[in-house]
Amino acid sequence: MKKRIAILPGDGIGPEVCEAATRVLKEIEALYQHEFELIYGDIGGISIDKNGTPLPQETLSACRQSDAVLLGAVGGPKWDQLPGDQRPEKGLLGLRKELQLFANLRPVTIYDALADSSPLKDEIIQGVELLIVRELTGGLYFGEPRERKIVDGEEIAIDTLQYSRFEIERIVRKAFQLAGERRGHLTSVDKANVLESSRLWREVVEEVAKDFPNVDYSHMLVDNAAMQLVRNPRQFDVIVTENMFGDILSDEASMITGSLGMLPSSSLSEDGPGLFEPIHGSAPDIAGKGLANPLATLSSVAMMLAYSFDLYDEATSLQDAINEVLNKGYRTADLTNDSNTLSTIQMTDKVIEAL
Amino acid sequence: MKKRIAILPGDGIGPEVCEAATRVLKEIEALYQHEFELIYGDIGGISIDKNGTPLPQETLSACRQSDAVLLGAVGGPKWDQLPGDQRPEKGLLGLRKELQLFANLRPVTIYDALADSSPLKDEIIQGVELLIVRELTGGLYFGEPRERKIVDGEEIAIDTLQYSRFEIERIVRKAFQLAGERRGHLTSVDKANVLESSRLWREVVEEVAKDFPNVDYSHMLVDNAAMQLVRNPRQFDVIVTENMFGDILSDEASMITGSLGMLPSSSLSEDGPGLFEPIHGSAPDIAGKGLANPLATLSSVAMMLAYSFDLYDEATSLQDAINEVLNKGYRTADLTNDSNTLSTIQMTDKVIEAL
Ligand SMILES: CC(C)[C@H](C(=O)O)[C@@H](O)C(=O)O
Ligand SMILES: CC(C)[C@H](C(=O)O)[C@@H](O)C(=O)O
Repeated sequence: MKKRIAILPGDGIGPEVCEAATRVLKEIEALYQHEFELIYGDIGGISIDKNGTPLPQETLSACRQSDAVLLGAVGGPKWDQLPGDQRPEKGLLGLRKELQLFANLRPVTIYDALADSSPLKDEIIQGVELLIVRELTGGLYFGEPRERKIVDGEEIAIDTLQYSRFEIERIVRKAFQLAGERRGHLTSVDKANVLESSRLWREVVEEVAKDFPNVDYSHMLVDNAAMQLVRNPRQFDVIVTENMFGDILSDEASMITGSLGMLPSSSLSEDGPGLFEPIHGSAPDIAGKGLANPLATLSSVAMMLAYSFDLYDEATSLQDAINEVLNKGYRTADLTNDSNTLSTIQMTDKVIEAL
Repeated sequence: MKKRIAILPGDGIGPEVCEAATRVLKEIEALYQHEFELIYGDIGGISIDKNGTPLPQETLSACRQSDAVLLGAVGGPKWDQLPGDQRPEKGLLGLRKELQLFANLRPVTIYDALADSSPLKDEIIQGVELLIVRELTGGLYFGEPRERKIVDGEEIAIDTLQYSRFEIERIVRKAFQLAGERRGHLTSVDKANVLESSRLWREVVEEVAKDFPNVDYSHMLVDNAAMQLVRNPRQFDVIVTENMFGDILSDEASMITGSLGMLPSSSLSEDGPGLFEPIHGSAPDIAGKGLANPLATLSSVAMMLAYSFDLYDEATSLQDAINEVLNKGYRTADLTNDSNTLSTIQMTDKVIEAL
């Protein structure tokens, strides 16, 4: 199979974990006789420094001409003082919008070998296996007006939470589909007792549900969801929610595992290239030191192989290789207090060996 | 001391826990020679049924003429299908706005006797003692426009996240003051990498900070805060944040304790009566069965005594009485799996004995 992959390393530990992904992609290419053409693009802070913008036109074109996009991470203190529209994050948000990546999928799984590092008790996290489906191109992130102005001599700032029926329907439908392929339960999270947009959301869920009689679904208020994720995360199969709630809940959910360095994500559009990235950030404090955990990025590569290329065997053997190195006790510094830890490169070597 | 207290029992278990509060207030009256005039008002679903509105004018006047307000809970499935502006919650939201209760204080403390019931590991929650200061009268809860409309044939729903410099400054100042009286650390939570309102929020925090040189402060993104509350809640002293983030994070934080039935809250204005309420909801499933845990409401009464009436001795002895009954092993049904539990009335008896 011949595929083109755009790799956008970005900031902080982004380049290191993307280097790991490149090596693993080359290995899979060789093992399974595929041809992966890798093209590279700038994004985020490094692109601001180089090109004066966090998302250059060339990067966007490279992504559009690819079958999938792999992203490292964006952002860092160096660019924190820049105005909102010139920040590294704007590169990522722009890419989401331009590629119409409306569906952000964040699986939260407990690796048995790492369960000890969860802040939650063992009996709470045993068997947790949930998927957060976050709407990614609407809501407060993109609504207009978003501005500062003076009204009656008083400075005010405004953001707009806006959703159309169309935007809600496509993400809810996606979530019902995914729930149907899993354990058949969907929890839609909103704040319908306060927000107009949540009431529309709830209505659309009710309508779409009619097309999925085999999926059990329920509504949950976002404040309650934030509690339930800690109280009893096992109750969830698929959670679907709007952009900002999804941002908050998915990060909370990821902490359940105790190992943020392990979790992948994918962002999908209706028919264009998907974007795959680790959910951890750019971790500027450890950047360039060879300490980064590459496994979340490698897990994201596995999602890419499955979701974008339908290469299920390859995806499974990559994910199995990750499980195997963990079961053998190999750890990067973020996963253990032992001093005897592997570097990014050594951990990647182990995964390649296991493949 | 002579004080007038408006009691708004509301829905579900509200009346039962307010009855507990009334008995305890009468006991304190007698023990310390105070005079508490208790006046009652309708709010929420029960008021919709009785008066056709969740917040009748008489209730509002009663509150305005009181020195403090005690609320039980509002809401329930019975009223879930009503349109947004006629729901029980609208009564609570209206009260917050009318009484200008801009500062919602939610202390999260671990009761040693209950630490076992937390979903988090012991070493994570040991010594957690944090206070969430939530802005309560602005943001998405009240911003205009909030509407549904058809644009180019497509139905859209809109909510508005709006903050003025004035609104941010008064809550941030309150939080700095409270942090100064505690361990001197303040975490301001926002989403400044995305939201215009959060960038204004951050600016105001920087400015107000200059008046509080003895308070250490830092900024944290809301997604990260949702993680950190689970990862290491001990790192926090006071957290200040906007209305919706505060709603989500404070419910998440409350779950850390494992005993939602224990947590009080107060909502304060610049100079009018404060409102005190348990943070648990109306729990319609157990309403009227005598099973409700009254301790969160009694803890809210303790906050009222301290914050609204400066009756610190009385507040302390009530809180001590609550600790004592827990240490003696008394439990309501929500706190234990044992079948041998106390009813709402029996638990209240124990607290009164301990007083
Ligand atoms: C970097 C930031 C803009 C982004 C978001 O809020 O969506 C990140 O937190 C994420 O969840 O991917
Ligand atoms: C009942 C509801 C409107 C309310 C809120 O969201 O503020 C509640 O969740 C709370 O936190 O007090």
